[in-house]
Amino acid sequence: MSRNKSERADNAYNTLERHFTRISRLDGALSVLDWDQATMMPNGGADARAEQLSTLKLIRHEALCSSEIADLLAAAEDDLSRLDGWQQANLARMRRSWRNATALPADLVEALSLAACNCEVTWRTARKDNNFKSLAPSLDILLQLTRDAATAKAALIGCSPYDALLDQFDSGAKAAAVDALFSELEDFLPDFLPQVLEHQRRQPAIMEPKGPFPVDTQRAVALELMRDLGFDFEHGRLDVSHHPFSGGVPDDVRITTRYIDTEFLQGLMAVLHETGHAMYERGLPKAWRSQPVGRARGMIAHESQSLIVEMLACRGPEFVGYLAPKMAAAFGDGKAWTPVNLQRLFQHVERDLIRVHANEVTYPLHVLLRYRLERAMIGGDLLIPDLPGAWNDGMRLLLGISPPNDADGCMQDVHWPAGLFGYFPTYTLGALAAAQFFAAAKQQQPEILPAISKGKFKPLMGWLSDNVHQWGSRYSTDELLVRTTGAPLGTAAFKAHLRARYLPD
Amino acid sequence: MSRNKSERADNAYNTLERHFTRISRLDGALSVLDWDQATMMPNGGADARAEQLSTLKLIRHEALCSSEIADLLAAAEDDLSRLDGWQQANLARMRRSWRNATALPADLVEALSLAACNCEVTWRTARKDNNFKSLAPSLDILLQLTRDAATAKAALIGCSPYDALLDQFDSGAKAAAVDALFSELEDFLPDFLPQVLEHQRRQPAIMEPKGPFPVDTQRAVALELMRDLGFDFEHGRLDVSHHPFSGGVPDDVRITTRYIDTEFLQGLMAVLHETGHAMYERGLPKAWRSQPVGRARGMIAHESQSLIVEMLACRGPEFVGYLAPKMAAAFGDGKAWTPVNLQRLFQHVERDLIRVHANEVTYPLHVLLRYRLERAMIGGDLLIPDLPGAWNDGMRLLLGISPPNDADGCMQDVHWPAGLFGYFPTYTLGALAAAQFFAAAKQQQPEILPAISKGKFKPLMGWLSDNVHQWGSRYSTDELLVRTTGAPLGTAAFKAHLRARYLPD
Repeated sequence: MSRNKSERADNAYNTLERHFTRISRLDGALSVLDWDQATMMPNGGADARAEQLSTLKLIRHEALCSSEIADLLAAAEDDLSRLDGWQQANLARMRRSWRNATALPADLVEALSLAACNCEVTWRTARKDNNFKSLAPSLDILLQLTRDAATAKAALIGCSPYDALLDQFDSGAKAAAVDALFSELEDFLPDFLPQVLEHQRRQPAIMEPKGPFPVDTQRAVALELMRDLGFDFEHGRLDVSHHPFSGGVPDDVRITTRYIDTEFLQGLMAVLHETGHAMYERGLPKAWRSQPVGRARGMIAHESQSLIVEMLACRGPEFVGYLAPKMAAAFGDGKAWTPVNLQRLFQHVERDLIRVHANEVTYPLHVLLRYRLERAMIGGDLLIPDLPGAWNDGMRLLLGISPPNDADGCMQDVHWPAGLFGYFPTYTLGALAAAQFFAAAKQQQPEILPAISKGKFKPLMGWLSDNVHQWGSRYSTDELLVRTTGAPLGTAAFKAHLRARYLPD
Repeated sequence: MSRNKSERADNAYNTLERHFTRISRLDGALSVLDWDQATMMPNGGADARAEQLSTLKLIRHEALCSSEIADLLAAAEDDLSRLDGWQQANLARMRRSWRNATALPADLVEALSLAACNCEVTWRTARKDNNFKSLAPSLDILLQLTRDAATAKAALIGCSPYDALLDQFDSGAKAAAVDALFSELEDFLPDFLPQVLEHQRRQPAIMEPKGPFPVDTQRAVALELMRDLGFDFEHGRLDVSHHPFSGGVPDDVRITTRYIDTEFLQGLMAVLHETGHAMYERGLPKAWRSQPVGRARGMIAHESQSLIVEMLACRGPEFVGYLAPKMAAAFGDGKAWTPVNLQRLFQHVERDLIRVHANEVTYPLHVLLRYRLERAMIGGDLLIPDLPGAWNDGMRLLLGISPPNDADGCMQDVHWPAGLFGYFPTYTLGALAAAQFFAAAKQQQPEILPAISKGKFKPLMGWLSDNVHQWGSRYSTDELLVRTTGAPLGTAAFKAHLRARYLPD
């Protein structure tokens, strides 16, 4: 009897793997079509592409939500004894995919998608016109639907509505834990920031390298640095899109950046950042390519990998020493490209209005503000008409500056108008994880920094591969951190990093 | 009672349209993924892409072959009284799609696909090594499976096995009609060719333009000519691939060419040819975008559109007069770029060994040879070991030359090793249709040639849109020809064109 049950569970698990292989290939096709839409597609192809994508998504949804999958999941979970650790983790990820896909009634999913689409379109004009009033009604509709969805998911998972939103981007993340971490940052950063600014004021002024920075040269430098980082062009590409992103599939990773010929920093940093994401995707476990457990764990782990490359490795003195002569050779203007000056440029801190232009020190404050506000909105404690005032109060309190208008204030990000509530915290949780991983990596593998000073990233990437990439979704972000650093996600490594970099004695 | 039947049929038809909309979007996604594979994908992405494509094709197959579709087709065909002409034609195309997808048992489809894949891989090496013996066994297996498939389809459609193969590429094409047309060409061309060569010998020698022809400049010229032809870059792109092709979807047409910097003719002609295909796709009826009747009629009609542009319009004196100064400006070397010299180059005839390098006069002879041989192979009258001998005999008889080896003889084309039997005739039937359409177009719209001499293609493209493109698959190729030229497909216009161009008095 028990043997029969065990066999049945085993068969159910194997059938599930076949179903999820199909879903994974659909996801791969969707990812390439998304990439094409952002990089190659002529504008006139938009309607046809939207139809192709929506049809593939519908087919994916049908494949995932069939009653057969529900029965198979129950049967497979009935006896885990024949499954190894990877398979058990895979089954849990299957259950999560199914739950996320079936949690909401179809009409709510459609209403949300429509409301987000409407709101994002409205936001583009509203932001340009600095007219929050024109955005408020569609943002309010979207917020109400998001609250309904969060409440429905929360009831299913057994958590708070905001936790249900967080869970979409990193499964298992909890507002209580975020609160604890973020309050440590709030205790630290608002005092730390003025000290950094004061220290910076006592340094020689930064020399801005003189442009133009021809796009072809920027691209050539970017490709060379990607090779240094270990990006494998047999399995990936670098292209241009309006917003940098990393897409494709692990065996064919497509990253993008954007170049302007009057400025080199944005294009360069986007390439380094996206290469960090790409190396994670590329390093995911080969044996689990087609299964949920073979995918990246979530946005916190993903962001940690991009920030380790961009912020921790590539803005540090070892890499800057390697990079500076390359930049001088590529763009001339020798005086501005000294390592000391370049590092000052890479580590410049100011009280910035705009999150995407923020630096390592202020970025968490930007996120903190958004986190507090979105929690209040989801909790019903902050109404849309009161958002601009609350935003401006928060900016004064946390960053000590006042936005001159709503366009550069509460309307600066696309996230809320696009329906992304619960996403912002992953940026800063990713930065904390990055600092914690990097500190452990440097300690466990002393070759990392000396190698980087020669433009060699094998020691770092080897450590990341062993400790993060190759585990896919097998472990939660906290489990990964405990395994490799001995502690769950915390602020100590991040604060130590900021002190060492921005307030050296 | 009759009213109920009619309503049932009507409902069935409408449900079918929804099913075929989904299939059309899957086809669109597949087409973009195919294009990406040929133009953008890094080599290391090949396996993942093959999996994505095979999964999407399987989903498409399941969607098309469901028993529901069979029932709906029968119900809709039960009463056509409520359907207009477009809908009736659409229903017939739906039936054809379903029949093509269900005609063969799944194991034969899989065996054929595997055999073709094996044979094509073998062919690459065999051709390089000039070793027909190494190709023969896998070609023999593929031929036997193709004969089995043709016999099964023929029984279903009620035609001969070879007709069943022809039908795959242009529905309704019959070997009896092809025989009649091709024997007229065989009566004409072998005598005509020596006269052309003799006439050519009496002309001044052609001056070959001196390279190099920088790839960037070739691309710039190509883009300009595409714009002249009316290609809409809001709805399409030009890229590079190993073999030129036209892909994408009608609202996002992706054409490709290839450039080598020592030669300009191949890259240029491929662009003009593929632009002809692209204009057909782009001009397909908007109201029927997502339905089978909205797609191109078949390979004969498609090839006619590419040849009208490349061969009839762009190798004629009007376009050459417009092009010559452009080429001189782009590539220098004034003497070689005179209109007279350029036209001689564009219209040069020789007894060529290789089909893809052939000219308008010899091309049909190459096709004739392949047609005779593949009919004999499918009919069981020519065995694979005897193919090289039969090929060489045919070349001597039709073109008066002997291939020096099998690599440049019966192994020169990928078609048979790829399992494409019944495809070759469409090249020459397309050339006949092109000449017939173009003659009617010039007669009915006298502005066509004067406009082309100024680089303006609106009169030509307007005529093609009205008479060919906008009809999609509503009419058969012969019906289209009768409607616009008064006669079904014939050889008269083609022969008249060759005489006028190659033996002017």
